[in-house]
Amino acid sequence: MAATRASGTTAVRYGTMRDNVLALEVVLADGRIIRTGSRARKSSAGYDLTRLMIGSEGTLGIITEMTLKLHGQPEAVSAATCRFGSVADAVGCVIATIQSGLTVARIELLDEMMLRGFNAYQGSDLPEAPHLFVEFHGSPAGVGEQAQAFGDLAGEYGASAIRWTDRAEECRELWHMRHQAHYATGALDPGKRTLATDVCVPISRLAEAVTHAQALARELRLTSTIVGHVGDGNFHCGLRVDPGDADEVARIHRFTAALAENALRLGGTVTGEHGVGVGKIAYMSAEHGAAVAVMRSLKSALDPKGILNPGKMLPADDEG
Amino acid sequence: MAATRASGTTAVRYGTMRDNVLALEVVLADGRIIRTGSRARKSSAGYDLTRLMIGSEGTLGIITEMTLKLHGQPEAVSAATCRFGSVADAVGCVIATIQSGLTVARIELLDEMMLRGFNAYQGSDLPEAPHLFVEFHGSPAGVGEQAQAFGDLAGEYGASAIRWTDRAEECRELWHMRHQAHYATGALDPGKRTLATDVCVPISRLAEAVTHAQALARELRLTSTIVGHVGDGNFHCGLRVDPGDADEVARIHRFTAALAENALRLGGTVTGEHGVGVGKIAYMSAEHGAAVAVMRSLKSALDPKGILNPGKMLPADDEG
Repeated sequence: MAATRASGTTAVRYGTMRDNVLALEVVLADGRIIRTGSRARKSSAGYDLTRLMIGSEGTLGIITEMTLKLHGQPEAVSAATCRFGSVADAVGCVIATIQSGLTVARIELLDEMMLRGFNAYQGSDLPEAPHLFVEFHGSPAGVGEQAQAFGDLAGEYGASAIRWTDRAEECRELWHMRHQAHYATGALDPGKRTLATDVCVPISRLAEAVTHAQALARELRLTSTIVGHVGDGNFHCGLRVDPGDADEVARIHRFTAALAENALRLGGTVTGEHGVGVGKIAYMSAEHGAAVAVMRSLKSALDPKGILNPGKMLPADDEG
Repeated sequence: MAATRASGTTAVRYGTMRDNVLALEVVLADGRIIRTGSRARKSSAGYDLTRLMIGSEGTLGIITEMTLKLHGQPEAVSAATCRFGSVADAVGCVIATIQSGLTVARIELLDEMMLRGFNAYQGSDLPEAPHLFVEFHGSPAGVGEQAQAFGDLAGEYGASAIRWTDRAEECRELWHMRHQAHYATGALDPGKRTLATDVCVPISRLAEAVTHAQALARELRLTSTIVGHVGDGNFHCGLRVDPGDADEVARIHRFTAALAENALRLGGTVTGEHGVGVGKIAYMSAEHGAAVAVMRSLKSALDPKGILNPGKMLPADDEG
């Protein structure tokens, strides 16, 4: 993958991370070593074991090698930041952008609290308002035209302070800031720790989901930054927590539960990237229903002794 | 999916068919009904049952509903046909196009014999030489620029008779011709039937694979057209056969065997789109090695009585 695909930032142009995995070498529970997939870009020969293993969190096998698609560096790049009056406007602009057929290389939402974090972290004085960071790749005129079209759409959604650059160095600088989001969250409420969680919803429900998360944090008196890979409908909350404060920990749990339940209510998933582990096992049955039993059958078939990452991802039989 | 994604033609811009499936409803062997995936564009919650079911040829469950991604109609379209001196030149042009970062919406190879088929079918007098059909989607200037860049690359690979159009009607006409490939193959060797087969190889080995297939057909005195979804490294052979001619049937079997074995030798797969069924069961072990046993375990876990499309896709235990 091109360097520009780092850090899980959305890339509608390049697909999700898992779309870029062609083949795997996997060690199974009984020590057998298998190869899944090939260097061919597609296959209809047999079950898609590559996708079955990706995201299985080590519960079906241990991935020891992977073959990835490579993307060439684009001829031209144009990136921008712009400011919106509300999260709803920012997300409305994203939806309009995607519906217009513009092929974004990345498009990221940063909420008001995230901007406050950047100000605290880097000593800046940026307006604490929702922002979009966007980037287009392609041929010079094509990129210019897409930038123009995006700028027009952003204007329709009340964007201000649109700042474009097509200089590689400035693009890097812009995304460097974005990639500091974790540290910038850490600059809020000094002395606390960050708990990160994510959900993913249909893009048409994204504004609703983000607005709900913001209201929830206010209601529960929690500090939460939001960074969204909005081209995918996926967003991350960075919650500040004092592990010694039992009441705050309880409010954090209420937040993450309400966030996950709302994602399901909106037709989404309790995690777009982070995975299930133990923290989201409780929602597996709510999200997948009868399919959880199917997942359990697959687990038993490939790891009958339950020695691979035991207790992770799948609820015990009597839990769901 | 947009109408332009019909008929399995390559769409690097839009991903493969399976990339466009978000969610399924599946009836299992024991009558349970499950839902896999959601309307969210990505998820890390549990095993990817959607991908496991896609391409399982009804051996794990019966798909009764699917949720697909939709793509907007592009603002501008530019399509072209061009002629090459050899398959190697045509495929070289495809590789250069992809490496240049041009995002093709579709790019199809038609070999000499395919052109002969079109002439026979539609009474035309097109030169019987390898052709590429290509289409770009995007903004007007962007599409123009990509068309220009492609034209330059095609020129470097000795393309002639490059015919561009950006009129929707002419684009439709052009692809209508391509979509008649099956009937055009049927216009060769009247009275025979068509047997279609496909393989998929890494794009870097595609010229070699297609050239091998052509030489093989000549050597075995078979009529075979080739149509390639070359952006994916996938191509289809349309072989004309008289089912009553035992010798020809035997030569067809030698052809399909050598085609599949060569695809594996080149690091590819014995089928990119058509699937395994019974015809390619013999190659499953050669392609997947120890992973076939894993596929068999999954099949046993989900269909212990073996009632779903029995005998298809997976070789019996003692066969591999």
